[in-house]
Amino acid sequence: MKRITILALMPLLVLGQACTDTKENNKTEVQAIFPKGELGPAENFTGNAWNTRLVANDSTYNTVIGNVYFEPGARSNWHIHPAGQILIITSGVGFHQIKGKPKQTIRKGDVIKCPPNVEHWHGASPDTGLYQLYIIPNTEKGIVQWLKPVTSEEYNK
Amino acid sequence: MKRITILALMPLLVLGQACTDTKENNKTEVQAIFPKGELGPAENFTGNAWNTRLVANDSTYNTVIGNVYFEPGARSNWHIHPAGQILIITSGVGFHQIKGKPKQTIRKGDVIKCPPNVEHWHGASPDTGLYQLYIIPNTEKGIVQWLKPVTSEEYNK
Repeated sequence: MKRITILALMPLLVLGQACTDTKENNKTEVQAIFPKGELGPAENFTGNAWNTRLVANDSTYNTVIGNVYFEPGARSNWHIHPAGQILIITSGVGFHQIKGKPKQTIRKGDVIKCPPNVEHWHGASPDTGLYQLYIIPNTEKGIVQWLKPVTSEEYNK
Repeated sequence: MKRITILALMPLLVLGQACTDTKENNKTEVQAIFPKGELGPAENFTGNAWNTRLVANDSTYNTVIGNVYFEPGARSNWHIHPAGQILIITSGVGFHQIKGKPKQTIRKGDVIKCPPNVEHWHGASPDTGLYQLYIIPNTEKGIVQWLKPVTSEEYNK
């Protein structure tokens, strides 16, 4: 009878595990909404940052919008937006830092504003990638001015 | 022996169904990134449209950003943005229509521009909800002017 009971429970145990695994994976998985896009140039990024431009600059909306997927450990150089920038995090975990302020951890659902003419950088955490939308408003004032790479010391601080 | 076999397979059948259901739900499930927010007022929406304001208007960014979840069948009234509007669909299926043009189906990953001073409406499909980000640029020109509800005839056309 004992053997029959174990045999009867076997599928329960095996499938129970399969279901749990699926749920666990879904919990930590980063979710893509847009195509992966093009690899950001090595002179502006450390590691792989994939950019999909969603709204090109024009004189009607004066707004540039895009999606960046930062692979784990990837980040932008320090840079300035003459009219500021808004970041909307749609998946994953990463960092944002404004020059002279502590590095902040950013996650799915966070909205970050970087004021005009302020140095900042953003990127993924070491272990989890980051999907972020960027919105650059008032582009008649300029879009971006690239500066130095973020050092490993700055990234890990 | 037949009874033992059936008993042994019971958990397999039951859990097999449970796993399939989870996968099926994940496939069509609309994914929330932001809090559900506040119910849009009945004078501007048909059905339930939940709004989370992500970026409030100010004179630095001149941009209003928010997330709307339209429940299945819910839609905005016809309305105008004096400086236009950009919609980014993050999950689900819905419709967008510019006055005088055919209704277009919109889905996860789509980016829609509505030019300044043009009447439009947007909302969910009858069976699947819609999560959309809205970006209203150049708010110094105005934000929104609400007009008449979208009739069932217009919605179903």
